[in-house]
Amino acid sequence: MNRIPDEELTLIPGGTLLTATPEEGRALALAIARHTVHNIQPDLDILTTGRVKYSDDPAELMAAAQVVSIEFQTIASANNYWR
Amino acid sequence: MNRIPDEELTLIPGGTLLTATPEEGRALALAIARHTVHNIQPDLDILTTGRVKYSDDPAELMAAAQVVSIEFQTIASANNYWR
Amino acid sequence: MNRIPDEELTLIPGGTLLTATPEEGRALALAIARHTVHNIQPDLDILTTGRVKYSDDPAELMAAAQVVSIEFQTIASANNYWR
Amino acid sequence: MNRIPDEELTLIPGGTLLTATPEEGRALALAIARHTVHNIQPDLDILTTGRVKYSDDPAELMAAAQVVSIEFQTIASANNYWR
Amino acid sequence: MNRIPDEELTLIPGGTLLTATPEEGRALALAIARHTVHNIQPDLDILTTGRVKYSDDPAELMAAAQVVSIEFQTIASANNYWR
Amino acid sequence: MNRIPDEELTLIPGGTLLTATPEEGRALALAIARHTVHNIQPDLDILTTGRVKYSDDPAELMAAAQVVSIEFQTIASANNYWR
Repeated sequence: MNRIPDEELTLIPGGTLLTATPEEGRALALAIARHTVHNIQPDLDILTTGRVKYSDDPAELMAAAQVVSIEFQTIASANNYWR
Repeated sequence: MNRIPDEELTLIPGGTLLTATPEEGRALALAIARHTVHNIQPDLDILTTGRVKYSDDPAELMAAAQVVSIEFQTIASANNYWR
Repeated sequence: MNRIPDEELTLIPGGTLLTATPEEGRALALAIARHTVHNIQPDLDILTTGRVKYSDDPAELMAAAQVVSIEFQTIASANNYWR
Repeated sequence: MNRIPDEELTLIPGGTLLTATPEEGRALALAIARHTVHNIQPDLDILTTGRVKYSDDPAELMAAAQVVSIEFQTIASANNYWR
Repeated sequence: MNRIPDEELTLIPGGTLLTATPEEGRALALAIARHTVHNIQPDLDILTTGRVKYSDDPAELMAAAQVVSIEFQTIASANNYWR
Repeated sequence: MNRIPDEELTLIPGGTLLTATPEEGRALALAIARHTVHNIQPDLDILTTGRVKYSDDPAELMAAAQVVSIEFQTIASANNYWR
């Protein structure tokens, strides 16, 4: 198995939900979603093959966007919406 | 690759979740959802092909509407529901 | 293109999340969900064809009901649940 | 068209989210979900045909259960969880 | 019809969302999800056939797990997260 | 039936939603999601076969990631977002 590097397996990259800006909070939401997938499937070859498939398919792109939207709800709330 | 312009890749367009009105908040929800998709798939040709497919398919339209509804929950809460 | 009328494209019909009653709040949730779809696909002919398809299909009816349930969460919270 | 009776089209049966008990709150969640479907598809014949299909299909039963779970979140919160 | 026993049709088994421990709260989430399905489809024979199908299918197992996760959000919040 | 070991059936491993760090909270979200699946389908052979299928399929990986995102919302809120 071509195992994904360890730093791609940290569940919460940076170790905190708190970020300076909404832009950074959104980037964290994307990273957390991606690292969750890496933990469930840590074989880089399978991930790469899968990525080609889903990133061309609008239904799967939307499913990925939905996961990010849920992660972002949590992060935005943690940061008191950067008010 | 026909890469999407950089301004379409900002994760939180405008850099804040705070908006003057519900209408602007909803427009932001749509923009954030769209930019998330752009970040996952930044190739404009693939996006354009995919858009033709999903925008004619009621199941995929509904999936897109669902993502927007989740993003809007976050934005509405950030704005204290514009009460 | 047979473009949907402009009033069907307002994202938040009425411009506010606040309503007098739960019944009106629920109607607003349905309207917001519908107008989101209109903004993603503003061609009335494609919408009409799609509607025939999804409104006969229990899986798609349920997907539409799910979007409405999420929109209603936001509206009910905005109205402090009409307590 | 064999139109569903008017009382099945009220969006919020009873006109309030407040109930005396969790059991009644859950029944309201089921009723609200069902009435939403009735509003999107008010033809009783199509609904009856669709019901036979989805109520035998575990994937569709689960989709219906998911909608009910979201409606119940709203109702439980409205009732301060009947604490 | 081989109707499911009445006690399997109570919508909120025990009549309250409050539990002594997270473990009991999670068990309640599973029970509420199951009883919702029973109410939509009370024929035990159809349920048993359906269960064989979905419990072998990872996509349907995940759909069931998602419903439980939403029910648990409500129950955990009702119990102030057992802090 | 090759039954999964009992410790894999605890619904809330550790018996609490409170964790010292976001990383541990996220690990708990993954464990809770996994144990829910184990409770619905406790046959290890069926689970192993299913895992091979879903962990190669981007749509199913994303469905699993979505369940984890919802569990994490609950856990993050329980821990006051580790602020």
